[in-house]
Amino acid sequence: ADAAAAAQARDRQARMTKPTGSLGVLEDLSVQLAGLAGECPPPVPEPAAVAVFAGDHGVHAQSVTPWPQEVTGQMVANFLAGGAVVNAFAAQLGASVTVVDVGVGTVLPVGEGPHAGEGLLDRNVRRGTRDMTEEPAMTRDEALAAIEVGITVARDLVAAGNRALLTGDMGIANTTASAALTAAFTGADAAAVTGAGTGVDAETLRHKTDVVRRALALHGLDAAPASAPVVDTPGRGLAGPGAADPIGALAAVGGLEHAAIAGFVLGAAAARVPVVLDGVIAGSAALVAASLAPACLDAAVAGHRSTEPGHGVALAHLGLTPLVDLSLRLGEGTGAVLALPLVQASVRALRDVATFDSAGVTEKQ
Amino acid sequence: ADAAAAAQARDRQARMTKPTGSLGVLEDLSVQLAGLAGECPPPVPEPAAVAVFAGDHGVHAQSVTPWPQEVTGQMVANFLAGGAVVNAFAAQLGASVTVVDVGVGTVLPVGEGPHAGEGLLDRNVRRGTRDMTEEPAMTRDEALAAIEVGITVARDLVAAGNRALLTGDMGIANTTASAALTAAFTGADAAAVTGAGTGVDAETLRHKTDVVRRALALHGLDAAPASAPVVDTPGRGLAGPGAADPIGALAAVGGLEHAAIAGFVLGAAAARVPVVLDGVIAGSAALVAASLAPACLDAAVAGHRSTEPGHGVALAHLGLTPLVDLSLRLGEGTGAVLALPLVQASVRALRDVATFDSAGVTEKQ
Repeated sequence: ADAAAAAQARDRQARMTKPTGSLGVLEDLSVQLAGLAGECPPPVPEPAAVAVFAGDHGVHAQSVTPWPQEVTGQMVANFLAGGAVVNAFAAQLGASVTVVDVGVGTVLPVGEGPHAGEGLLDRNVRRGTRDMTEEPAMTRDEALAAIEVGITVARDLVAAGNRALLTGDMGIANTTASAALTAAFTGADAAAVTGAGTGVDAETLRHKTDVVRRALALHGLDAAPASAPVVDTPGRGLAGPGAADPIGALAAVGGLEHAAIAGFVLGAAAARVPVVLDGVIAGSAALVAASLAPACLDAAVAGHRSTEPGHGVALAHLGLTPLVDLSLRLGEGTGAVLALPLVQASVRALRDVATFDSAGVTEKQ
Repeated sequence: ADAAAAAQARDRQARMTKPTGSLGVLEDLSVQLAGLAGECPPPVPEPAAVAVFAGDHGVHAQSVTPWPQEVTGQMVANFLAGGAVVNAFAAQLGASVTVVDVGVGTVLPVGEGPHAGEGLLDRNVRRGTRDMTEEPAMTRDEALAAIEVGITVARDLVAAGNRALLTGDMGIANTTASAALTAAFTGADAAAVTGAGTGVDAETLRHKTDVVRRALALHGLDAAPASAPVVDTPGRGLAGPGAADPIGALAAVGGLEHAAIAGFVLGAAAARVPVVLDGVIAGSAALVAASLAPACLDAAVAGHRSTEPGHGVALAHLGLTPLVDLSLRLGEGTGAVLALPLVQASVRALRDVATFDSAGVTEKQ
């Protein structure tokens, strides 16, 4: 980040016609985005694009969710038809939706006719991961290929003129992979990061937690954190057994959409464009990205805090403050889209608001 | 509220292509707005209008704030010039801004030229309240006149086509009046509801709390709550010594903008249009409105939670869940405007999202 631009933004916030600090979290956000853009004020982050990365999970065979695996592909078709919540939110709040098949297990029912499949990027790396409780979910090459998908999607969306990127995901059983990744990259216990996902009962939750624990043990990712964070800054240090070999840990227990979202964050940061993270899937993917390149967090904004317990653990580790906290647990990018207007408003205020001098308003005595 | 329309909305939320409950607070909000409109789905609440009610306060003489009183009028001029944060937020997020002088103490410097004063409604009831530590801040007639200003502004904004109303305020020292109102209508102690406002030091905060306490005592509003709430529903019961005579309590310790906002809430509810409340000023005004007509809360949405301690007390008493919680403490309507996209998105989802049946998505087993 550009320290001079950030300092200019902090200084301008202090001269704007309002009590200093009275915009709370949004003041810090505007400073972050000025630093990211390298200019003060930074551009208002619009237009905006959500990329919904879809993938399936071999661990579904372990009965971690009551939803059938084919729902992943069915929901992709729903996104393409404009019928999902992320479509409604994006239409209302001003974002485009791009669906990326990075690992869907079924052949997609994209409909018929001249517009069939429009809005879908076919970047399928493999038709779903392997079962992490039996073998690595991906090979290293597959994990890298999925990361590259995310990087190139970010690059292409920025090249198309977008100035805000938002993460989305779809993948039945993907909260299981997120729990395992979050445990691996933070050193937290499986029980602290495994949640009810789309809605499982208490018995299934115990079973799901055990599945996560077994997968971590199989891949040597259940050790206590090797050390305290190397540096003090939250999210900028290494912690958790996965941090020693991020690609290896990602391949062992992650999902193809998690890998792609990690790449998407890296791609956004490389383009110095803010990337608004959705919920627990994005949070765990951001842990991977931050382990690979800590500075990518300069571009990251936590859109919301999910009710999934692992998300709070990930956000704390990343040092990110969520903008929306409304007990959402849907995914798809819905929490990121809801945060978009808040991100845009924070920059708009920094750009437009008069200073005490310019407006002739008397300052505090 | 229309129970049948609300039940239809709850049912539709359960059939939409997402796990039931996964939109958290926004599902409840869409149900509330369906009940308010009396139809499911309700209309998306747009266009939207912020009314910024401005007034001055006799209690300013008690040195409760480091800001000079003339800043109220200067900020009104800033609103009219489009230079304040509420203007920037409203421009970005799609709301108009109307400024209502209901009690500014100074003659307004509205500039010169053909557009001077454009966007300002001159509804001045009196040039600032009296000092509540010495006498009632308003007469009953003045309080009623200011309430009527709010009612008619709401009526006129709805007549002009607006389908969402947002509260805004400007008034140096108005957090002191809010603290006194909140104590009077909830029975809370002065210390629990008095905060730093625009930023006072610890010594001034102690003094400000004492000012609130003295005013409550002078007007007989410091008694313990006469009784437990009459009914169980939060916000629908009476509590606090002010509830016995809401107009009297408002006149004793309130502000002209507080009275107008109470009327604005009543006017919105009468038109069955949602009213998004800003922060601590609106929260205390909503206590007055709810004491006069509890059903008005059917139309009320808590835009955000301010850092002012009295705001949390008021929201809890009203039974309202804030949509945004980002450590804001600016007022002007800024927190309400930030919440507007969330309100609109909740309704848009209820209107647009496909059901499991219609989208051909398999349900949870």
